[in-house]
Amino acid sequence: MVHREPAEAAAAAAAGGETSISTQPPSSSQQAAPPPAVLVYKVGYPPRRSLATEFTSTLRETFFHDSPLKQCKDQSVSTKLQMGLQLLFPVLGWGRTYSLSMFKGDLVAGLTIASLCIPQDIGYSKLAYLDPEYGLYSSFVPPLIYAAMGSSKDIAIGPVAVVSLLLGSLLQKEADHDKDREEYLRLAFTATFFAGITQAALGFLRLGFLIDFLSHAAIVGFMGGAAVTIALHQLKYVLGIRSFTKETDIVSVMESVWGSVRHGWNWQTVAIAFTFLAFLLLAKYIGKRNKKYFWVPAIAPVTSVILATLFVYLFRADKQGVQIVNKIKKGVNPSSVHKIYFTGPFVAKGFKIGAVCGMIGLTEAVAIGRTFAAMKDYQLDGNKEMVALGTMNIVGSMTSCYIATGSFSRSAVNFMAGCRTPVSNVVMSTVVLLTLLLITPLFKYTPNAILGSIIISAVIGLVDYEAAILIWKVDKMDFVACMGAFFGVVFKSVEIGLLIAVSISFAKILVQVTRPRTVLLGNLPGTTIYRNTEQYPHARHVPGVVIVRVDSAIYFSNSNYVRERILRWLTDEEDRVSAEGLPRISFLVVEMSPVIDIDTSGIHALEDLYKNLQKRGIQLLLSNPGSAVIEKLQSSKLTEHIGNGHIFLTVADAVRFCTSKSMQEP
Amino acid sequence: MVHREPAEAAAAAAAGGETSISTQPPSSSQQAAPPPAVLVYKVGYPPRRSLATEFTSTLRETFFHDSPLKQCKDQSVSTKLQMGLQLLFPVLGWGRTYSLSMFKGDLVAGLTIASLCIPQDIGYSKLAYLDPEYGLYSSFVPPLIYAAMGSSKDIAIGPVAVVSLLLGSLLQKEADHDKDREEYLRLAFTATFFAGITQAALGFLRLGFLIDFLSHAAIVGFMGGAAVTIALHQLKYVLGIRSFTKETDIVSVMESVWGSVRHGWNWQTVAIAFTFLAFLLLAKYIGKRNKKYFWVPAIAPVTSVILATLFVYLFRADKQGVQIVNKIKKGVNPSSVHKIYFTGPFVAKGFKIGAVCGMIGLTEAVAIGRTFAAMKDYQLDGNKEMVALGTMNIVGSMTSCYIATGSFSRSAVNFMAGCRTPVSNVVMSTVVLLTLLLITPLFKYTPNAILGSIIISAVIGLVDYEAAILIWKVDKMDFVACMGAFFGVVFKSVEIGLLIAVSISFAKILVQVTRPRTVLLGNLPGTTIYRNTEQYPHARHVPGVVIVRVDSAIYFSNSNYVRERILRWLTDEEDRVSAEGLPRISFLVVEMSPVIDIDTSGIHALEDLYKNLQKRGIQLLLSNPGSAVIEKLQSSKLTEHIGNGHIFLTVADAVRFCTSKSMQEP
Repeated sequence: MVHREPAEAAAAAAAGGETSISTQPPSSSQQAAPPPAVLVYKVGYPPRRSLATEFTSTLRETFFHDSPLKQCKDQSVSTKLQMGLQLLFPVLGWGRTYSLSMFKGDLVAGLTIASLCIPQDIGYSKLAYLDPEYGLYSSFVPPLIYAAMGSSKDIAIGPVAVVSLLLGSLLQKEADHDKDREEYLRLAFTATFFAGITQAALGFLRLGFLIDFLSHAAIVGFMGGAAVTIALHQLKYVLGIRSFTKETDIVSVMESVWGSVRHGWNWQTVAIAFTFLAFLLLAKYIGKRNKKYFWVPAIAPVTSVILATLFVYLFRADKQGVQIVNKIKKGVNPSSVHKIYFTGPFVAKGFKIGAVCGMIGLTEAVAIGRTFAAMKDYQLDGNKEMVALGTMNIVGSMTSCYIATGSFSRSAVNFMAGCRTPVSNVVMSTVVLLTLLLITPLFKYTPNAILGSIIISAVIGLVDYEAAILIWKVDKMDFVACMGAFFGVVFKSVEIGLLIAVSISFAKILVQVTRPRTVLLGNLPGTTIYRNTEQYPHARHVPGVVIVRVDSAIYFSNSNYVRERILRWLTDEEDRVSAEGLPRISFLVVEMSPVIDIDTSGIHALEDLYKNLQKRGIQLLLSNPGSAVIEKLQSSKLTEHIGNGHIFLTVADAVRFCTSKSMQEP
Repeated sequence: MVHREPAEAAAAAAAGGETSISTQPPSSSQQAAPPPAVLVYKVGYPPRRSLATEFTSTLRETFFHDSPLKQCKDQSVSTKLQMGLQLLFPVLGWGRTYSLSMFKGDLVAGLTIASLCIPQDIGYSKLAYLDPEYGLYSSFVPPLIYAAMGSSKDIAIGPVAVVSLLLGSLLQKEADHDKDREEYLRLAFTATFFAGITQAALGFLRLGFLIDFLSHAAIVGFMGGAAVTIALHQLKYVLGIRSFTKETDIVSVMESVWGSVRHGWNWQTVAIAFTFLAFLLLAKYIGKRNKKYFWVPAIAPVTSVILATLFVYLFRADKQGVQIVNKIKKGVNPSSVHKIYFTGPFVAKGFKIGAVCGMIGLTEAVAIGRTFAAMKDYQLDGNKEMVALGTMNIVGSMTSCYIATGSFSRSAVNFMAGCRTPVSNVVMSTVVLLTLLLITPLFKYTPNAILGSIIISAVIGLVDYEAAILIWKVDKMDFVACMGAFFGVVFKSVEIGLLIAVSISFAKILVQVTRPRTVLLGNLPGTTIYRNTEQYPHARHVPGVVIVRVDSAIYFSNSNYVRERILRWLTDEEDRVSAEGLPRISFLVVEMSPVIDIDTSGIHALEDLYKNLQKRGIQLLLSNPGSAVIEKLQSSKLTEHIGNGHIFLTVADAVRFCTSKSMQEP
């Protein structure tokens, strides 16, 4: 393609290779040596692939980029079967090498998270407007299923605050939890069932990447907003207010709080709540200051519950207006298969609610799983995790559980307490079982205020202001997304906040694909390196040549913009050149290294650009088109229009062509 | 950052600059000359911008990338006002230099498109289930508004086939055109009104890029499908069938056709239809073969109408069962302001239908405008066009017009007939006015069959099989999208086809942003150029170093994938290296030239990657991060983690660092 003349090549070498530091003046070297061997590389055409190969490779990269079955290759059928089973039930893998020393770690971790989860479960079920036993149920069955199917070693399974809040607030719109108690409950199981179906389906169809569409910034904002909302709602219990709004926005909540300030607050409740809240926060602080004392915040909640319950029981504070839990149903999870709606109008509603809550649950669980996997340096297959989480919720919905997922706070405690395998979840589950069987009656006198305090101290950690500050520093648009989600949740509702988070995330993607960056390149003096003139102010313009790099695939969504933007760069440069009295521009080099792909719209745009430039008497040159691009340029015959001789491997080659052409002209 | 030692640099230069063709052996040059001046370029940090600058520049690039007010800069207020007016009404600009010779061109073109549009208008209004006069009305008012506000010189305004079909089929779902005649008509005007509002709003808010989200392939498929559907529906008129399905799918239509084959077809109608269809197609063929005879297909329809009408009138063929137009209301457009729904449940329906049809109308008009602007080499501002089209439809909806837009076939004729300015639209509009005032009664005996033939011959051109073939050649996935839209329209309905087209377009964007390409780079022997090893099979691996290029911005939507994919490249290379007994890999270079931006999720991914590599004893090096990226890496302190000395300007620099490090180790 580029038939470089020896003399020209030598001159070029003298002018500067990428690192060319010529040790002798060019003239002398030219005289001293024979014409050098010319190293000419053409733009490579990738080997032609058949339609089937092309198709399967695209599919593989989209859905199976982690080649999950890689290890099954070249194995006998029985081994394959065994491996397949093991993929579905990782317990078959790690179970074989499980040892006593591992169990020691798991036992301690399991007991610790159990002591943390029991009071949390009771509190979180209130967020979902469910009776307290459902929270406990959900910490019994799902962790067992996860232990068999999950691949994360550190995640602690159970109900979590944000999903409980979201579920409660979505369910409440369809059925009132006070008036239609039974319907509400049935809808909750239906939603849980469909949440499981959604999760398992996403994993099974390898569509796990869909949850990546919620941006980190949007999640930070959403979680923070949800935490504030949850904490505010706990004021009901903490202040002992009896009539409280069902809305979750800050305005309604504050109206409820201040409206009852004269007669609705119960000072005994307030006293209990704030004493223990101070205790819990202190414990949290101690645990944070010194990692050795991680167990202090972990057992603080259960200690508080015991102390507070004892206090209320001894002083019969419930007679003074301190609200108590009163009753938790004793016994193991009853079946709830018959309660799930499989027909009727509630199916669609349950599906919608379940799908939303399931996705949020997934987002949380997968984020947690990935975080801890990265810390312990093992790989986590997001899609497999989703199948595990989905199955666990499907089974859960049939055994009176509501949506469970990975809890960040409990997983962190699990990790720090030295868990080794998902057996810690089994230990926790056993403790919850014993609680359900034996000691639920003891919770009768537990004041609601203490549960409120526990929830407040638990969700405070979700307000990740450090992350928000980092987001502010790194990307202002991201910060807007984060704040949008935050204020949406706090001032309107969880759904609105979520909607804002998703919309902003998508809007960002759309802007990203419609408005790709194009930059003007200049030559770094003394080299053949061409770089962005804005980033490298000492990069020099090449006389008579405009070099533009397009930093994105050229697709239908941006092809018009790219064409217009390149022309604008050209116009701007022409203005500059004529103002400075420099020679007129006769070449436009489009550096295509970052253009990973092009579609028919993109090819049309390039063709239009070519025609437009021809009318102006400017030659279009292309530099370094990638394999996919050169293939498509060729099959659309655009290479012939532009001329194969006008396509170069590097910008330096293209510029050399331009300079030699300009010199030939009068 | 990269403090290259002189000796090392010289060796590097000898090893090969980007084009380095060393004319002497390296040793001799090293002996002959003193250590050369070291050219060290660091990775550039862009000048720090204030928040406001950053924000406005992002906004400008997203919404005002074409800097529409550029020419207004540095002008007095009155000039600015005048220029603003001229931006809104381009007629104030070109009107001043309008000359008689221009008018000659416009007159001929206007008369030609008028003769083409009158029969088409009558036919298209039938597609929208409206009386024929509404088609004519829509060719009278909207072109006048467009002539004042539009900036395309070649577009011909009026009702078009696809939008008429879409409007009819959407309206029919809300109100039956037979039973609720008045309601149907009011809803049509409401939809037109909101179509105009949507179009104008998109333009005014500079959201015009939204229409770029319909990919070229999807449009080709959708248009082709709509054309087939329209042609099939004309069988009703062409075969003279009285009872015909209201569905648009091919199965229902074919059932209607074959179900009436024994008694429902009217042979006189068939004879008229096919004779003239043959004539029209012949005319089309002549016009296509020789561009000089472009006027033959342009006047063929009106000739056919005259001949056919005369024939029916003379032989009273309507008595033989040949269906005729019968009555077109005489007179100019009546006002329809009072017919638009501004309140009630129909507003929402009208808005929905209007928004969809308006968007499709825009897509068509802007595509046409751009095509002809590119041919005549003038720029077209998409957003300004949208404001013009929107205003024209708003006014249209108040003067008994339904949605008008740019017609491809008529615009092409307009262009070939030598139009110079939008005055050709004014000429056309005047002819239509005269038709409405004077000669509508003459259409009484026009057979419906001839209108069917005219529509068939007009829409045939929309089946762009050449484009489909090109799409097949260029991109197989695009072809799937194209066929999906096509078959969706043909076998199901226009809406479903449109939905498929939009969904596939979006799915493509989503796949594109979640699954960016990553490639393994190798060194082209004898140079410091590093290229994709798949595209350039002779590119060599550097021992102990894996070089991966990430070909996309690293965003929340792909950050996990990118991290995992890089690790997979590494694992694959490690497998290869250990299989071949080569030295173990101790460096991973991530070439970041194409990474135009990074967000917080992306930074987390890089940090995870860095930690993971550290655990494996592999050093992470970055090469050529762009300005936005280096800024964010720095503000998140990731540069400090990775080490500033591990960030290089070029891959070659990074590799040189690796080799020198490896040599230092035992």
